[in-house]
Amino acid sequence: MPTRSLLASIVGERYVLDDEESFLVYGRDEYPRAFSKPRAVVLPANAQEVSEVVHACYRHGIPITPRGRGTGLSGGALPLHNSVVVSLERMEKILEINEEDHLVVTQPGVIVKNLHDAVEAHDLFYPPDPASLESCSIGGNVAENAGGPRAVKYGVTRHYLLGLEVVMPGGQLCRLGGRVLKNTTGYDLPHLFVGSEGTLGIITSITLRLIPRPRLTCDLLIPFASLDKASRAVNRILMDLGIIPAVLEFMDAHSVAAAERMTGQTFPFSEAEGHLLIQLDGSSETEIEKQAAALGELCLTLGADDVFIAQNSATRDRLWAARRAVLEACETTRPATELHDISVPRSRIPDLVRQLQTLTAPLGVDVACFGHAGDGNVHVALMSDDPSSFEEQLEVLNRTVAHTALALGGTISGEHGTGAVKKTHLDQALSPLEMKLMRSLKAAIDPQGLMNPGKIF
Amino acid sequence: MPTRSLLASIVGERYVLDDEESFLVYGRDEYPRAFSKPRAVVLPANAQEVSEVVHACYRHGIPITPRGRGTGLSGGALPLHNSVVVSLERMEKILEINEEDHLVVTQPGVIVKNLHDAVEAHDLFYPPDPASLESCSIGGNVAENAGGPRAVKYGVTRHYLLGLEVVMPGGQLCRLGGRVLKNTTGYDLPHLFVGSEGTLGIITSITLRLIPRPRLTCDLLIPFASLDKASRAVNRILMDLGIIPAVLEFMDAHSVAAAERMTGQTFPFSEAEGHLLIQLDGSSETEIEKQAAALGELCLTLGADDVFIAQNSATRDRLWAARRAVLEACETTRPATELHDISVPRSRIPDLVRQLQTLTAPLGVDVACFGHAGDGNVHVALMSDDPSSFEEQLEVLNRTVAHTALALGGTISGEHGTGAVKKTHLDQALSPLEMKLMRSLKAAIDPQGLMNPGKIF
Repeated sequence: MPTRSLLASIVGERYVLDDEESFLVYGRDEYPRAFSKPRAVVLPANAQEVSEVVHACYRHGIPITPRGRGTGLSGGALPLHNSVVVSLERMEKILEINEEDHLVVTQPGVIVKNLHDAVEAHDLFYPPDPASLESCSIGGNVAENAGGPRAVKYGVTRHYLLGLEVVMPGGQLCRLGGRVLKNTTGYDLPHLFVGSEGTLGIITSITLRLIPRPRLTCDLLIPFASLDKASRAVNRILMDLGIIPAVLEFMDAHSVAAAERMTGQTFPFSEAEGHLLIQLDGSSETEIEKQAAALGELCLTLGADDVFIAQNSATRDRLWAARRAVLEACETTRPATELHDISVPRSRIPDLVRQLQTLTAPLGVDVACFGHAGDGNVHVALMSDDPSSFEEQLEVLNRTVAHTALALGGTISGEHGTGAVKKTHLDQALSPLEMKLMRSLKAAIDPQGLMNPGKIF
Repeated sequence: MPTRSLLASIVGERYVLDDEESFLVYGRDEYPRAFSKPRAVVLPANAQEVSEVVHACYRHGIPITPRGRGTGLSGGALPLHNSVVVSLERMEKILEINEEDHLVVTQPGVIVKNLHDAVEAHDLFYPPDPASLESCSIGGNVAENAGGPRAVKYGVTRHYLLGLEVVMPGGQLCRLGGRVLKNTTGYDLPHLFVGSEGTLGIITSITLRLIPRPRLTCDLLIPFASLDKASRAVNRILMDLGIIPAVLEFMDAHSVAAAERMTGQTFPFSEAEGHLLIQLDGSSETEIEKQAAALGELCLTLGADDVFIAQNSATRDRLWAARRAVLEACETTRPATELHDISVPRSRIPDLVRQLQTLTAPLGVDVACFGHAGDGNVHVALMSDDPSSFEEQLEVLNRTVAHTALALGGTISGEHGTGAVKKTHLDQALSPLEMKLMRSLKAAIDPQGLMNPGKIF
């Protein structure tokens, strides 16, 4: 039976897409350099249909690429090997918000921002906040173990996961974990699936722990003349003040310049080499004000050029719009760019930035670094005005970035996943034994290798 | 070659124990009803020796039972199937405390209290705090994914794990994960090993994330006439005050009575059905005082009989000594007892306690419930004055407790693991598909089934 008929018999003709325009949309994620034409795109309405689709593909040996909202940056949703894209976008209901037990049960296609808004209306809080939160799905967040700025205080997606409903590679619907905060009943299977990038099954329902919503926030922008000074300040903020800010980000001068180019706005002290962008949160106004004052004073004694406190929501929104714009700005304001998602021990950020600048300068490539100073997760944008030589150098550049991160005790992907893009550097990052272990887990759960082929492995 | 010679050739004669006295010690953990004579006990000095011991056992098809400090409550370290006990007690060095990057690298045999003290001397904090913290090892904590009272605010062992060094079932030494807070480089293997109860390998080194040490704590004891009232107060504390206490425990009247019997001290309002024991922490004295006052007022409006604030460290220590004594008190002050470690969604705790009391009363069995009101993890002590009829009823009693927890949306083990004891109820708690998945993971990593045999599976 042709793939189209096979799939249409389950979800209906309307929800199988195989036109060229759809292929252009579903043949890629937001990693700009990769495209792969899918065999077909199917949009199931519920777990039962996902199960039947997977079972049908399994019987016919057809590979499957699960897809949330396609906002990934590592090619995790790239439909390699002539696979069928199973898009979860129609499964966008929040099934339960439980105020007593502080949990939410949601379908995978829900946009993260909608999930945030829905639980916050109940005075609850789901902390993970990837930059793409207005367009990415919670299912994709679980598959990639998404992070975001608030990870420094609140952790990543994994830390909120209680239970999953998953369609296994053979099509069986399986519930893993549950609704409890502490669970040592056998292996904790949800924790194997989070971050497995769709290579072990398709998530059809997610149960997440929530916490009480912090009532108040206060945002600060603090420029330092050097990244070393900013980095020392990060550690002193954490240690001397005895608080963990909700957000503790940095941007270097290249990142700020890119954001200025794109937004047309100017930044105070835009030439500063290390801007810290900090959010405090809590439930007491006087306490937050005291903390902000202490933080500002501490930073001034540590050599900050100035301390800007966002006094109102307009200032705050402008601050964060600039931070969120950096990624897009780096990608769009220069003719040739490549983005990395490096994780290093926090104290090594200045070394990382310095070494990358030294290594790439002779090649005529600029490096912008920004991201999560508090947790050591640095986004590195390589930028050039000469696309053709950039493309030629890219493989060497990428291996150089990976090598630099690893040599500093870090790793090649902090929160964007391995996918199809970073897997070429996996042999640098992992030992043969780790690789073998991962392969044996994959083989145990997906012996035919049909689930999201060409990712990680 | 006899097992003794095989092992002695690696670790030296002195560190192989095969006398009857050692067998009595190493043939059990703290679950009182189970003993199994080991084939031998070996005490390796380092990872290399662990690797050689495991490799030697593997070649000879000898099963292995890894052991931390033997404080487990689910028979996880019970040397079933004539296995060799590999005790990690000699590996008790803290290898690195990193103030800049807020992490600790430790050998597995370190006592958790010693780890706490060592990192707190650097103004850092490792939150997980199982009741046995003065005698249990950090390796055992990782193997069992240990929790403790502070989990309500700070999470369990899993949430602090960054990297592991593990000896695999064939003897290979393997590093998993690393030193970074965010890591999406392939599958997150440390998260498969945490909570796997020694069935996948032996942990020889652990890298844990730390946080800044909270400067101040304030402890409150708040008695309520009923568990319903106490339970409602728990939710209102979390929601209305907008803070998560560091600790949010409860004890029912039976638990308090047992603690009084053992310690010889009396509790205020000891007849109250729901005592809440709360710890606030933070860095600002005025803020904590304000929170404590608001918390006390809130509880009084919700029907608390009184609010006791521990004004000094002597009072605080007495409070916590009583809470920590409950477990031992339940076990030692009655002729026949059995302890369960149930997890339910927080709001179901009153239902759980009521149903257990109703179900067990006709059998002449008392039920004491205490534990982690904030996260839904309840320790249930079944107590009787008639050992012989208790033993006869025990299987039915245990199935009843498991069934009750599961029917309330909970599970049969919150933080004590599955081990040899709870595995008899695993078929109640897990679906056949979940069981099959767990078995396939075990088979992928330990195909010979030599690592901690008879646990979980």
